[in-house]
Amino acid sequence: MSSPLARIAQVPPAIVDAELPAPDDGSQRVRLRFLPDGADVRVPSGTPVFDAASWNGIAIDSTCGGHGTCKKCKVRVVSGDVPVGSVDPRAFTAEELLDGWRLACRANARGDLVIEVPPLQTRPKAALAGVGRHVILRPAVQKRHLVLAEPSLEDQRSDLQRVLDGLEDLEPKASLELLRSLGSTLREAAFDVTAVVCDEELIDVEPGDTTARRYAIAFDVGTTTVVATLLDLESGQPVAVGSMLNRQQPYGADVITRISATMLDHEALGELRERAHETLAQLTAEVCAEGEVEPREVYEVTVCGNVTMIQLVLGIDPEPLSMAPFVVSTHSMPPVSASDLGVEVHPRAPAFVFPSLGAYVGGDIVAGLLATGLTRDRRLRLFIDVGTNSEIALGSNERVLATAAPAGPAFEAAQIKCGMRAADGAIEGVKIEGDSLALQVIADVEPVGICGSGLVDAVAELVHCGLIDHSGRFMAEDVAAELHPGLSSRLTMIGKERVFVLHWHGEDPESSVYLSQRDVRELQFAKASIATGWRILMGELGVGPKDVAQVLLAGSFGAYLTPLSAVRIGLVPDLALPRIVSAGNMAGEGAKIAALSSRERAEAHSILREVEYVELSGRADFNDMFIDQLAFPG
Amino acid sequence: MSSPLARIAQVPPAIVDAELPAPDDGSQRVRLRFLPDGADVRVPSGTPVFDAASWNGIAIDSTCGGHGTCKKCKVRVVSGDVPVGSVDPRAFTAEELLDGWRLACRANARGDLVIEVPPLQTRPKAALAGVGRHVILRPAVQKRHLVLAEPSLEDQRSDLQRVLDGLEDLEPKASLELLRSLGSTLREAAFDVTAVVCDEELIDVEPGDTTARRYAIAFDVGTTTVVATLLDLESGQPVAVGSMLNRQQPYGADVITRISATMLDHEALGELRERAHETLAQLTAEVCAEGEVEPREVYEVTVCGNVTMIQLVLGIDPEPLSMAPFVVSTHSMPPVSASDLGVEVHPRAPAFVFPSLGAYVGGDIVAGLLATGLTRDRRLRLFIDVGTNSEIALGSNERVLATAAPAGPAFEAAQIKCGMRAADGAIEGVKIEGDSLALQVIADVEPVGICGSGLVDAVAELVHCGLIDHSGRFMAEDVAAELHPGLSSRLTMIGKERVFVLHWHGEDPESSVYLSQRDVRELQFAKASIATGWRILMGELGVGPKDVAQVLLAGSFGAYLTPLSAVRIGLVPDLALPRIVSAGNMAGEGAKIAALSSRERAEAHSILREVEYVELSGRADFNDMFIDQLAFPG
Repeated sequence: MSSPLARIAQVPPAIVDAELPAPDDGSQRVRLRFLPDGADVRVPSGTPVFDAASWNGIAIDSTCGGHGTCKKCKVRVVSGDVPVGSVDPRAFTAEELLDGWRLACRANARGDLVIEVPPLQTRPKAALAGVGRHVILRPAVQKRHLVLAEPSLEDQRSDLQRVLDGLEDLEPKASLELLRSLGSTLREAAFDVTAVVCDEELIDVEPGDTTARRYAIAFDVGTTTVVATLLDLESGQPVAVGSMLNRQQPYGADVITRISATMLDHEALGELRERAHETLAQLTAEVCAEGEVEPREVYEVTVCGNVTMIQLVLGIDPEPLSMAPFVVSTHSMPPVSASDLGVEVHPRAPAFVFPSLGAYVGGDIVAGLLATGLTRDRRLRLFIDVGTNSEIALGSNERVLATAAPAGPAFEAAQIKCGMRAADGAIEGVKIEGDSLALQVIADVEPVGICGSGLVDAVAELVHCGLIDHSGRFMAEDVAAELHPGLSSRLTMIGKERVFVLHWHGEDPESSVYLSQRDVRELQFAKASIATGWRILMGELGVGPKDVAQVLLAGSFGAYLTPLSAVRIGLVPDLALPRIVSAGNMAGEGAKIAALSSRERAEAHSILREVEYVELSGRADFNDMFIDQLAFPG
Repeated sequence: MSSPLARIAQVPPAIVDAELPAPDDGSQRVRLRFLPDGADVRVPSGTPVFDAASWNGIAIDSTCGGHGTCKKCKVRVVSGDVPVGSVDPRAFTAEELLDGWRLACRANARGDLVIEVPPLQTRPKAALAGVGRHVILRPAVQKRHLVLAEPSLEDQRSDLQRVLDGLEDLEPKASLELLRSLGSTLREAAFDVTAVVCDEELIDVEPGDTTARRYAIAFDVGTTTVVATLLDLESGQPVAVGSMLNRQQPYGADVITRISATMLDHEALGELRERAHETLAQLTAEVCAEGEVEPREVYEVTVCGNVTMIQLVLGIDPEPLSMAPFVVSTHSMPPVSASDLGVEVHPRAPAFVFPSLGAYVGGDIVAGLLATGLTRDRRLRLFIDVGTNSEIALGSNERVLATAAPAGPAFEAAQIKCGMRAADGAIEGVKIEGDSLALQVIADVEPVGICGSGLVDAVAELVHCGLIDHSGRFMAEDVAAELHPGLSSRLTMIGKERVFVLHWHGEDPESSVYLSQRDVRELQFAKASIATGWRILMGELGVGPKDVAQVLLAGSFGAYLTPLSAVRIGLVPDLALPRIVSAGNMAGEGAKIAALSSRERAEAHSILREVEYVELSGRADFNDMFIDQLAFPG
């Protein structure tokens, strides 16, 4: 009973101020009801009312974006206790304070509350992003056109103070670099300037009125592919999108190979960093050219990626990530600038880097969770980012658990005999109806290999039609001939291994595109790993597969997966198919959302506190459950 | 009555929290009495009790240095109101809170208080600095030896979190650069490391126990001379001192010439910056070598200088400083690192740069005021830093005013016929007794010129013995011959100008060292400017010369001035000579104090708020008063 929280409980509430930091475990939750629309939301105790509203698409007036400076986010606490905060007395009279009026950005919800939100004075812009999320536009990057009084002997305010006084509702800090040019900029522009503020920093003071031009770039740094989206922060709309292969590829296809490279050669970390910077720089140049935007007009970048990619791009030694106990350098990055990423946009543009939950549940997954709204939704949902390392999250606004399952490279078809990347000629879909087999091939050319989604389809169809049994073995020839006389000739041998030919090139099975017994085994390992992951999370949460309202398949691979096949091989729980959603690149959506709203970023950090990470490698029950999951369902 | 302060007054005190920022004008003052020793101090309203105590040499337990994290600075408010702050409930029980216990670093004094300070648990070290100031050692740079648990699957805290958890009473932030090497440092040192924290930043994590080695360098960047003091932060003692001419000299002897250089040639700003960096780098190398300290063991630098020097060393365009309305870029610098000054010490060492009051009352004067304790002392004191630009401050702990008087180059003897810098052969003292004239010459060689203090002495003595009248004119030959027959031959003509020969080289007056009528006029202008300055401040404060308890003559020139001569020419008020103190290089002392105590730095910023700057160039009464002051007293 001597914990800080227990002690606070002894103190009369009126004298404990509103700025006590939230407990870090995110375990306590509170319920907020917003009037007049009646929306009911649950958030971790200590969340500012302003953020709780933002995260749920409820707009409250604000020009400073929730920094306690504009004093416009006035709400009334109708029920529940919110102590008077440090800024409130400057915004309200004593009568108003006693009547429950508070600034929403400074009112931390530490108990259930009913909040009255006055009608909006200005209509905030919003954008749709992620899985149907309504994001209220509150970019960290703000511009203000200022026509300032010129200095005189009666008004000797410093150049910086003059600009800050002009900003009124914002109170940013300036850097030495900005100060170097501030004096001449102000005088050359006759004190008619535009201040550019990002979060709490005065990024620039530009001559004249430049308020119409305000951009950011959202990066999704994948191990394989890097995607950049140039966003117009005035409208919230993407202006240009570019993607390219990560130039780190020559150092290995997956994160482990790249980490190994840094351990074998101490120059490699620098080279990998350089390759990542080149990738980001090229994409930046491309999207700026396509969008007809000057790089200098890009005032911020947001970045998500797995922990290894982020540590490599920032030049942080990744070695501890590669071996037990899998320790990250930090969950939340210190301030990073766009130039730290090799990105030449505005020279003082900061970079928002998504925080990570653990070595194998990185910022890409936090971004994905943000985009799905998993931690805000009442429904119990299962999020799976399918890949070499598959990340899994399960929960609702009550509680969310996450874990990482080492699925191996099957989904990327790397160790598959006829495996290939999802490129022209890859079989990406397989359908067996009766005795006929139909292939879906990328670019509609003659098949040359099979990619991850094709592999899942092929195995799922063969299991479904009985040519693979539930233990994963190809049927004996005689049984197969009886079951599917039209297909049984495809079941043949290459060397000592049984294979199923998907596409013949002439009569030699070895030159055909086929699925081998070992390929099936690889997939079984991969799907068992994932299924074990979500089953362990279900056990921890005390729920069963039938309680899941929705499954979200994310990642570039998840987007192409056939829900039916995923169910048939047991990769996901056996739900009605409309409940299994291929959600696409959720990480990239999360990065965009972060650029569009500084309050959503606050949610990214809240996700870090709220979501409980479950480490699989330390668990006694993992192996048993894994062996159970190797079999196909049915 | 709608000002923020008026509104706060309406709110019941218990619900206004303790962290409301202080009003910026520094106009309200409160009285604090510390028990058991009974010390009575006056500070601006809003000052933390911890700082008020520190500034007055009263020690309160603390290991975090006043950041609200160690929770050791417990005091009891015996009389007066201090609302419970945000951290208090974590340090005290409800009973203790009701009994008046508060953390001194979070208890802002907004009214008169009586504070009980418990006996110290640890004996804090202290150092003497400035004008007899007792500085309690609380360097911003702190070290902690940490023996950390190694990570395991049960303890996957991030590397950074592990270090932060080990710090307990400190909660610093880390930079990206530190993170890059943190993982390998921890593992190579088997998690036995020393954390180096400066203020709120984790500067480094070093292998093993390095707590015994902790250094800082205090720089005083003068227009002419730059001084560096290497300080051992463990003992508070200087280890080595170095000084050299500012390498910017070729660009002009004074600030105006150097600013002009930047206006004529846009490369000059970069070159001046480079020259300043070279100067600081050379001094750094010298003091580190002399003190046998590795540059990497210097974790912080403190810097004071006039505004032009500071802007030049940081590469900030100084042009607006050189013309009315004399506007500074900023009063308080944004975060600056030692490397921004070209100083190669620890790569992440920050630089504390003294804030400035105005374009001509710079950080050197704020440092000087800190060293003298002018704003804390009950006595009314007059501080004059004599130079081309002379800074003047007058006041006590009740109120302090400051101004800058453009004295011209007389004191640096630049426009004086036989003027020279205070170097070998310079006449630095003159004494006339009866008919005999005695010279004091630097290095006891034959005189070759006259420096500032010699000029003041010569004029003062000639006024005193009647060879110069009160209007500043040399006496007519006949009157002189009557008054001082033994000296009158020295009064002669060179061309059309009357001169007084101080030292003959042969018989030709032109090759002698002499004082010309125009030299006397130059000095009259200079001293009238300064005397007008302090008289205007006295008028504003409603005091007279006789109310002044002490005059502090600061600056490298002030240190050599003879108090008697200063009185005789009317440069300072006519007080008993022991009250006129040549205080020496107060700016340098202030820079040292800032390195020794982070709380004293807080006072430097408080000085900025408290001291009222009076601009002379805008005043109608300046010219009248200036003309009155041209005459010599008597």
